[in-house]
Amino acid sequence: MTSNDFFKFEIIYKSKKSGARVGRIYTPHGIIDTPCFVAVGTNGTLKALDNKTLDEMGLQLMFANTYHLILQPGSKLIAQAGGIHKFAKRSFPIITDSGGFQVFSLAYGGVAQELKSKGQKKHDSSVIKISEEGVLFRSYKDGAKILLTPETSIQAQKEIGADIIVSFDELLPYHADSKQLLKSLDRTHRWEKRSLDEHKKNINKQALYAVLHGGVDKDLRKKSCDNLTKLDFDGFAIGGSVGKDRFEMFDMLKSLMPNLPQDKPNHLLGIGDLESIAGIVPLGIDTFDSSHPTRAARHGLLFTKKGLMRIFKSGNALNHGPIETDCSCITCQNYSLSYVYHLFKAHELIGLTLATIHNIQFMIDLMKDYRFKILNDQI
Amino acid sequence: MTSNDFFKFEIIYKSKKSGARVGRIYTPHGIIDTPCFVAVGTNGTLKALDNKTLDEMGLQLMFANTYHLILQPGSKLIAQAGGIHKFAKRSFPIITDSGGFQVFSLAYGGVAQELKSKGQKKHDSSVIKISEEGVLFRSYKDGAKILLTPETSIQAQKEIGADIIVSFDELLPYHADSKQLLKSLDRTHRWEKRSLDEHKKNINKQALYAVLHGGVDKDLRKKSCDNLTKLDFDGFAIGGSVGKDRFEMFDMLKSLMPNLPQDKPNHLLGIGDLESIAGIVPLGIDTFDSSHPTRAARHGLLFTKKGLMRIFKSGNALNHGPIETDCSCITCQNYSLSYVYHLFKAHELIGLTLATIHNIQFMIDLMKDYRFKILNDQI
Repeated sequence: MTSNDFFKFEIIYKSKKSGARVGRIYTPHGIIDTPCFVAVGTNGTLKALDNKTLDEMGLQLMFANTYHLILQPGSKLIAQAGGIHKFAKRSFPIITDSGGFQVFSLAYGGVAQELKSKGQKKHDSSVIKISEEGVLFRSYKDGAKILLTPETSIQAQKEIGADIIVSFDELLPYHADSKQLLKSLDRTHRWEKRSLDEHKKNINKQALYAVLHGGVDKDLRKKSCDNLTKLDFDGFAIGGSVGKDRFEMFDMLKSLMPNLPQDKPNHLLGIGDLESIAGIVPLGIDTFDSSHPTRAARHGLLFTKKGLMRIFKSGNALNHGPIETDCSCITCQNYSLSYVYHLFKAHELIGLTLATIHNIQFMIDLMKDYRFKILNDQI
Repeated sequence: MTSNDFFKFEIIYKSKKSGARVGRIYTPHGIIDTPCFVAVGTNGTLKALDNKTLDEMGLQLMFANTYHLILQPGSKLIAQAGGIHKFAKRSFPIITDSGGFQVFSLAYGGVAQELKSKGQKKHDSSVIKISEEGVLFRSYKDGAKILLTPETSIQAQKEIGADIIVSFDELLPYHADSKQLLKSLDRTHRWEKRSLDEHKKNINKQALYAVLHGGVDKDLRKKSCDNLTKLDFDGFAIGGSVGKDRFEMFDMLKSLMPNLPQDKPNHLLGIGDLESIAGIVPLGIDTFDSSHPTRAARHGLLFTKKGLMRIFKSGNALNHGPIETDCSCITCQNYSLSYVYHLFKAHELIGLTLATIHNIQFMIDLMKDYRFKILNDQI
């Protein structure tokens, strides 16, 4: 158990059947029951859903992006408002990333694009220089030069004031060769140590997670793990390229997870599709974030116990029952599938909100169900 | 006082200072306190705001468009769902129009466009034929031919099932000459009589309003009034071209209002900007509808007691107080102006919802204030 005044992790139960575990993360803004799905609120809000409603739904952890927040509205403005919780009116815990991932995306395109492009740089005009100090890039908002380093990332995350913050790391493309990977890994470890040192100057009731790297190379993952778990981070995120598909990821995680300290919480970055969740929970993943449920909702893909359902599926127009009969979400408790179908058909924005509410509630309920099953050794 | 089982209008107070009056319209879905602003929910929802939230805010009357609803999802589907209140999950009263206005808009463009185009037909490819029977047009959704007549409009409005429905009328362009106007007026009166006859076959706990025409010609307005008030409509809407500007409209209304039966409710179609409201309330208008407050919200124009405020006004980014200090709306009670500014700046959809909530609450509060002032002979 890691514990201090404001951050504590306890394991409630370990499954007898797998590596799955049920735990609790205590933060200044309340408890996170794990395993927990973390919804992505890039700009301090989920897309198409306001934080008051989200609070009422009981989503326990929201992921916000430091890169976006430093560009708009700026971390200093958020500090002036009293921190991200007050600024965005969220009562429950928030985690921010370091901004590194977005800088990587700017340099190489998104992960999916990158996998297609075999690591060739693209859209890199906004990244001016990557050096030992950090990354110099140009704001897409106003063209201003911004230097993101371990120190400035941590300082920005202090100003934003999330409950959990993340070390600044370098991300290499999936197709990087092992020499590049090793060089980058060493730099990332130096950056993460600098992040920790900066964090310790002003802990600010925040927990700091390291980010484990090494791509899909099991030895490098082990090396990263050994290096970073020696330092007193509060938790460990699994980042970098986690594989070109689900199976490569599962394979990497199977080898990595036994090396993680059992008494600290872990987080898998950027994963949240239903098939992946089914695979990562038994491996002992505590939290994981994804924009998939909210993006799917806006594209008219509704989560149901029978699988994904297209809103425009034949028959939905005439279905006067809820999206899912036993769903407790605001949408299903109030509106029919027929009405939500109509809103999408008529291009009414509020349809996106109602679909988002449903998918997020589905994820909250799904994770409750996972925890119940772990407690009963069914997973 | 007009009264029946399900629809009643009573005047609570007449101002000693003007023609303004405070009244109550009783409907199967509750009371409408007049004068009342009617928000426009074209497709059975306000843009960017869900009906459950709108119910909680207490908006007493919503305006839905028959033209849009018959094309999507279809009036039969709404009937099958149990009517528009059940379909759209709205507890409070709803009024639908006849669909005639949209057919006119298709034939001549919008009113504003029409004023510029001097009445030349445009975008009229979807209107196939206007005859004594009604209007034949083509659905922009699927190309199907649809015949809208007094009878089919009323039948569709029966299927939709709003509390207040409106007679089918013909709209002429503002620039129509007096011969055209007179001819159209006579046809409109015949169509409205047919609407009333159709309505009487199956009253369906609905009130039917006539639509007074005559453009800005005071004699024609008087003629329309004399013709239609002889018939037993439950209320009178003022439609057609009401003037090229506010002053022409005030002038027309000053001459028209004394001819209206005092014991029946009236409705001014499509007007709702703040300056117009200040002019029409003292003339005795009971209800009026406009999409202006919701559209303004989506364009970042916030209603305040000091006038319209652009969301991007300098200073708003750093204003950590609410949009308006003494506003009771969900947005002002929970979120800062700085945060709403940020949401707009970051192109977050939920910003549109928060702005819409504020503007609608402003209108609800504004009308409360108007009623208070009338009761105290201040208006």
